[in-house]
Amino acid sequence: MEYPVTGLHHITACASGAQEDLDFFTKVVGQRMIKQTILFDGRYAHYHFYYANGNAEPGTVMTTFPYKRLMGRTGSGQVQATVYTVAKGALPFWIDHFNRHRIVHRGMHERFGQKFVQFNHPCGLQFEVIEDAAERRVGWSTEEIAPAESVRGFHGPLLSVREIEEEERFFMEALGFRKTGVDGVYHRYEIGRGGAGKTIILLHEPQRPAGSWTFGAGTHHHVALSVADDEALAEQKGIYEELGYTDCSEIKDRNYFHSIYVRSPGGVLVECAATAPGGFAKDEAFNQLGSHLLLPPWFEHRREEILAMLEPIKPPEFHAPVPVEAIGASRRTEATFVAVDREPADREYVREPVTR
Amino acid sequence: MEYPVTGLHHITACASGAQEDLDFFTKVVGQRMIKQTILFDGRYAHYHFYYANGNAEPGTVMTTFPYKRLMGRTGSGQVQATVYTVAKGALPFWIDHFNRHRIVHRGMHERFGQKFVQFNHPCGLQFEVIEDAAERRVGWSTEEIAPAESVRGFHGPLLSVREIEEEERFFMEALGFRKTGVDGVYHRYEIGRGGAGKTIILLHEPQRPAGSWTFGAGTHHHVALSVADDEALAEQKGIYEELGYTDCSEIKDRNYFHSIYVRSPGGVLVECAATAPGGFAKDEAFNQLGSHLLLPPWFEHRREEILAMLEPIKPPEFHAPVPVEAIGASRRTEATFVAVDREPADREYVREPVTR
Repeated sequence: MEYPVTGLHHITACASGAQEDLDFFTKVVGQRMIKQTILFDGRYAHYHFYYANGNAEPGTVMTTFPYKRLMGRTGSGQVQATVYTVAKGALPFWIDHFNRHRIVHRGMHERFGQKFVQFNHPCGLQFEVIEDAAERRVGWSTEEIAPAESVRGFHGPLLSVREIEEEERFFMEALGFRKTGVDGVYHRYEIGRGGAGKTIILLHEPQRPAGSWTFGAGTHHHVALSVADDEALAEQKGIYEELGYTDCSEIKDRNYFHSIYVRSPGGVLVECAATAPGGFAKDEAFNQLGSHLLLPPWFEHRREEILAMLEPIKPPEFHAPVPVEAIGASRRTEATFVAVDREPADREYVREPVTR
Repeated sequence: MEYPVTGLHHITACASGAQEDLDFFTKVVGQRMIKQTILFDGRYAHYHFYYANGNAEPGTVMTTFPYKRLMGRTGSGQVQATVYTVAKGALPFWIDHFNRHRIVHRGMHERFGQKFVQFNHPCGLQFEVIEDAAERRVGWSTEEIAPAESVRGFHGPLLSVREIEEEERFFMEALGFRKTGVDGVYHRYEIGRGGAGKTIILLHEPQRPAGSWTFGAGTHHHVALSVADDEALAEQKGIYEELGYTDCSEIKDRNYFHSIYVRSPGGVLVECAATAPGGFAKDEAFNQLGSHLLLPPWFEHRREEILAMLEPIKPPEFHAPVPVEAIGASRRTEATFVAVDREPADREYVREPVTR
């Protein structure tokens, strides 16, 4: 059978400070900031930042909700780390680079014959750079990071699960991945031609307490897989519902893509996303991507009010990128915003009651 | 704050044989069969049976999908047992009754000062009868079960979870339950005035492997909580989405009620349901409830085709019940049914590939 999913689309995490996040991704990871917008759900105004390679391609897109109001709790049932590929031989550069930026890292390790270095976002989120000789995508580059050393896009997410069986069954039966290897605690699944951007790795941690599923600083929120269009989203929703995953969301209008979300049995929230006509270039010129806060049409008339609730940021200076090919539902169109995204006095893992 | 949920609405499980299921609920449990219809999702034709008290009230409604095609796997992250209340002093009757019907049971035990007996559906599903002196609801009665001994409705579901913390947080923060006690491995949460029909109990089983989430014989599928109307469903969906439960489904038209579904962090699928205008009496007279296979309007023209795919059943004979008060979205309106619900030759916990 043909499954709709073709590979990774984006990965989303809750960061903490907005400027801190922006500096980490543009200066340390060296991605291109391709969009400043806001979280479309809920009554709190939060940024939604997008970072990608120069071409803003699906499979390279890291997105964050800077989210100071609440801390998340890391644990099993979450994306444990987002893994970027780099060229073979690039890791010594990255270790020096992390040291220069005083970024916490754990040195060089190996998985499925590929060397990687795990490093931390200042808010605690975990990332990795992994060497991949087969990587042909073009990365972004910065004053410190030359094209040869740049991150090219995702290898894939590392998902921490207490049990392999049902999560494996979900990725294989519901999404069409195939199992391609086990290396100690790591179980690898690939789709399509496999390799970078087409891989999911489960990290088996049977004794690890579950992390939180709610939005919370320092935790990944979901992994998004790429499908062709709205018809493919509807088909995937049908596959989920027939299997009994009745909670699959409606098709949501995320402005730059349309999405469905479902919870996988290992605990990770899995989105399927179909890039909308125009993609990230639908509301700003390709060589200006990420330079201004953009709101979806249904919030544009409230720009002043929303801006006043967000941490002021200084976006990165822009290079002139190569041209991108133009690529190609339910939405929250109104909201009563109730508060600014401000760090509470006691910023522990707070159990904040929902007050509406 | 006011939360929309007021108590339990229904609980749904995947049974195995249709006649076996019907006999169990009408003769052993002694509920009234109030609806014969079909599962509205997927490409396989399955029955959907509803059983309740005489008044077909929310909080008494057990529903099943007889589902022979696949076995489910029981485990943590599931409804472990559905618990019915009976009058104080009724348990000796029930033990005799189970013995007469050769129903597997585990004798009398006690939890939070209430005596209960756990017993098994022939397909392995677990149920309990628990004594509750405060119970005032009217049960159904049969030739073997007098009104005084009858099950009155749900006390609530028993949910098996490996960890208490995030599941508790979900029921309290997202749904408005309050914690009212711990008794060994049992953690109790109540809503509204509490007690029968307003209670959820978590069973802490830290070492128990996770059960399957897909449809499969012998496993509970979801627990449904009651809300007033579509506006309350939309409000609850907003609460979920603001917290980060982005997978919450759209509002689905289940003909007799409208529903949203979300996965709770302990693994249990949680529905919120608002009874539709007319409720279960919308398409058959109240004193005829459950006497005929009824299809939603969008499948009625395919009755012959659907009937041919279902196990022939002999519904129970009907009593004349007391009159009910009439009480007061997205749907699957077309389907290509691909197979009959027939037990496969090898009926183990099969990993059936999705073939479309």
